[in-house]
Amino acid sequence: MKFPKPYTLKEISELIESEYIGDKLFSIYGMNEIHVVEAGDIVFVDHPKYYDKALNSAASVILINKKVSCPEGKALLISDDPFRDFSKLAAFFKPFKNANKSIAETAKIGEHTVIQPNAFIGNNVTIGKNCVIHPNVVIYDDCYIGDNVTIHAGTVLGSDAFYYKNRPEGYDKLVSCGSVIIEDNVDIGASCTIDRGVTGNTIIKEGTKIDNQVQIAHDTIIGKKCLLASHVGIAGCTVLEDEVTLWGQVGVISGVTIGRGAVVYAQSGVGRDLEGGKTYFGSPCDEARKKYREMAGLKVLPEIIAKVNNI
Amino acid sequence: MKFPKPYTLKEISELIESEYIGDKLFSIYGMNEIHVVEAGDIVFVDHPKYYDKALNSAASVILINKKVSCPEGKALLISDDPFRDFSKLAAFFKPFKNANKSIAETAKIGEHTVIQPNAFIGNNVTIGKNCVIHPNVVIYDDCYIGDNVTIHAGTVLGSDAFYYKNRPEGYDKLVSCGSVIIEDNVDIGASCTIDRGVTGNTIIKEGTKIDNQVQIAHDTIIGKKCLLASHVGIAGCTVLEDEVTLWGQVGVISGVTIGRGAVVYAQSGVGRDLEGGKTYFGSPCDEARKKYREMAGLKVLPEIIAKVNNI
Amino acid sequence: MKFPKPYTLKEISELIESEYIGDKLFSIYGMNEIHVVEAGDIVFVDHPKYYDKALNSAASVILINKKVSCPEGKALLISDDPFRDFSKLAAFFKPFKNANKSIAETAKIGEHTVIQPNAFIGNNVTIGKNCVIHPNVVIYDDCYIGDNVTIHAGTVLGSDAFYYKNRPEGYDKLVSCGSVIIEDNVDIGASCTIDRGVTGNTIIKEGTKIDNQVQIAHDTIIGKKCLLASHVGIAGCTVLEDEVTLWGQVGVISGVTIGRGAVVYAQSGVGRDLEGGKTYFGSPCDEARKKYREMAGLKVLPEIIAKVNNI
Repeated sequence: MKFPKPYTLKEISELIESEYIGDKLFSIYGMNEIHVVEAGDIVFVDHPKYYDKALNSAASVILINKKVSCPEGKALLISDDPFRDFSKLAAFFKPFKNANKSIAETAKIGEHTVIQPNAFIGNNVTIGKNCVIHPNVVIYDDCYIGDNVTIHAGTVLGSDAFYYKNRPEGYDKLVSCGSVIIEDNVDIGASCTIDRGVTGNTIIKEGTKIDNQVQIAHDTIIGKKCLLASHVGIAGCTVLEDEVTLWGQVGVISGVTIGRGAVVYAQSGVGRDLEGGKTYFGSPCDEARKKYREMAGLKVLPEIIAKVNNI
Repeated sequence: MKFPKPYTLKEISELIESEYIGDKLFSIYGMNEIHVVEAGDIVFVDHPKYYDKALNSAASVILINKKVSCPEGKALLISDDPFRDFSKLAAFFKPFKNANKSIAETAKIGEHTVIQPNAFIGNNVTIGKNCVIHPNVVIYDDCYIGDNVTIHAGTVLGSDAFYYKNRPEGYDKLVSCGSVIIEDNVDIGASCTIDRGVTGNTIIKEGTKIDNQVQIAHDTIIGKKCLLASHVGIAGCTVLEDEVTLWGQVGVISGVTIGRGAVVYAQSGVGRDLEGGKTYFGSPCDEARKKYREMAGLKVLPEIIAKVNNI
Repeated sequence: MKFPKPYTLKEISELIESEYIGDKLFSIYGMNEIHVVEAGDIVFVDHPKYYDKALNSAASVILINKKVSCPEGKALLISDDPFRDFSKLAAFFKPFKNANKSIAETAKIGEHTVIQPNAFIGNNVTIGKNCVIHPNVVIYDDCYIGDNVTIHAGTVLGSDAFYYKNRPEGYDKLVSCGSVIIEDNVDIGASCTIDRGVTGNTIIKEGTKIDNQVQIAHDTIIGKKCLLASHVGIAGCTVLEDEVTLWGQVGVISGVTIGRGAVVYAQSGVGRDLEGGKTYFGSPCDEARKKYREMAGLKVLPEIIAKVNNI
């Protein structure tokens, strides 16, 4: 997430009441998680295991819970609780605004786009041309939707990331300040849920078609011309390259990449990166032909056991 | 789908700007996909593999991408792209109409039926007597609901079929002009989705009870007194005969038939026709007693492997 | 469910037109199913197999389809159809009331709680302080929500239990008169469904976090600080002790208990009680390390079969 204008290191340190190391006028342009961080951004890190990764990332400012030496050309924000303070910044820059009507005055809606009754369109939402937003669709603040997009009834875009830190006193939520981007010519079925990114964007690329009751978690990127059948669930920070097909009830774990053109059969579970151009099956899934051989083996297993026990 | 009045072959050919073979006054009464086509209807076919099936079907008019010889008593519409032109006809006869209020003036609602707040009832919807339509239910245009039906909050009836043709430039949607029929004494849980038929109807027969978050795709027919537990997903053009029970998270592939009285245990995947009166389990499923034997085998497999490797 | 005031045995017998055995002035305070029944309550039983259990339960009044001898200090209601008459009482004490507006006048909403547009808040709902109820959420009558609760768009709380008796003429629904209780600091994602208890309450305890599209059935109790990932489905009358984690698409059968701190991996099926503090996987699930060994065995099974067949 980029800030609406650059802030200085001192200003940010005052917002979170932290110390800082670096030039007080050091310019900061945004904040992002480690996997999407860019020059000019703040990143946060609260575990020694990841200090080096954060300090050596593209981030210009590291919000960290130890006074380490500051890398050349960067700055540090020293906090006893970087998770809390990162959340504090997210809430400062993207405060929750309650709506006083179903379609926000700040929403931009393109020509020939139809918004059906009982839909909710939040603040600063952009919807392109020739879209149909069916009844009871909910589009949270700041989501961006391209042209020729159809969204069926009851679908929710932009709900919060399911992202918590386990503290002794309870789960602590990281405030989501990212968004959802739906590119041109995407169709989304009824009662789907697509969460906003934590700091970046959840993106559905051009021409992808999504069936009913599909769940796509925060920061996940779905390539062009993918097909996602009903009840598919995709966890956070996952990448589907272009032209991936997931059949019904497939589940995908967080953080993996599914290669271009891969096909995953119904009810499979994807627990690791999958090479493109191949067909997969099973929970956890493997190449379909291997799985079919295992299944054929399973069918004759009782008689094999009898044979072995008779030896 | 039947047309509101009969059209002549010439009139239809003008709508889609195609050639035709047959009497220009030949009467056409409707249009349907191959699996539900009747005398008087147009069917479409665009792959030589299926030409004979289409030409020999009950259809009176075949929308086809080759000049073949016209069967006796029938007519042909010759198009370079039957899929596109079939969609064009669907859109002509069932154009999308946006709503200007939550409950359409053309909806017919029976006596003692309660429509709770924020529900959407589309154009030409019929709802029988003694029904309860809970809040935020969405019923798209033309759906038909019998008597004594309860539909819980957030459920969506009549969203578009998930039906696309893969073209070089992207997925092309077949326009759905079918509908949804819910017979008497059906209960539908919260946040279910039931898609309309492509040209025919998705039908839920009398006395069937459906739990929450169930997905039923286009043209599927659910028999009488079926029980569908939560998160069940049923693909398109599937038939459940009467008194079938599917437990939670069962998935059913498109086009299969599940016989009367079959019971499918939770999380199973149905990938083929199932004989009635039996109990099934597994993904892909098999008769439960076979599956249980396989699973018992699987538990002792590590020790069998050790034994075999020691021989 | 407790009655709004005590009723006498005679009054109740007149409501359901049944005979009774006991003092006509015997006080009755409520009605409950066998697993949650307390002193002062009516319980019902219609199968000889369960007569003793019902007669020896904490219930003070047994609604039963046989004239048996009345236990000391208790009373009987004799009915030819206890299921029907129990439902009749439920409908009498908790009649369905249709709403004339989206937010009932009898709803109590705490300070600093935000109700977003198109949400439905039923009669006698209580919502605590500092909650956010996102757009198109539906909260049925009588649900209770604590403080600092966030409920994302499209979620439904308090829909009816999926609970039917199979009669020759069709499935007969037990009228739900229980409720839903959401304790403090719970977050619920988008498009979840949580059914009310049949006579008791479905309870989500303090600090639990629920992702999108999760289904929780009637009378289920989710402990404190549980994590339920997307597409999890939990059947009725199940207990999750504190700090249980269920990953995506896990299914849990009715009536089981999952022990404190258990972790169940994605797509697993829980078909029996699970001991706390352990990690589970598979459908049906077992301890993860056992399952992994089975899976490793499965991978080498084809070559083992070849070996055995060569002996």
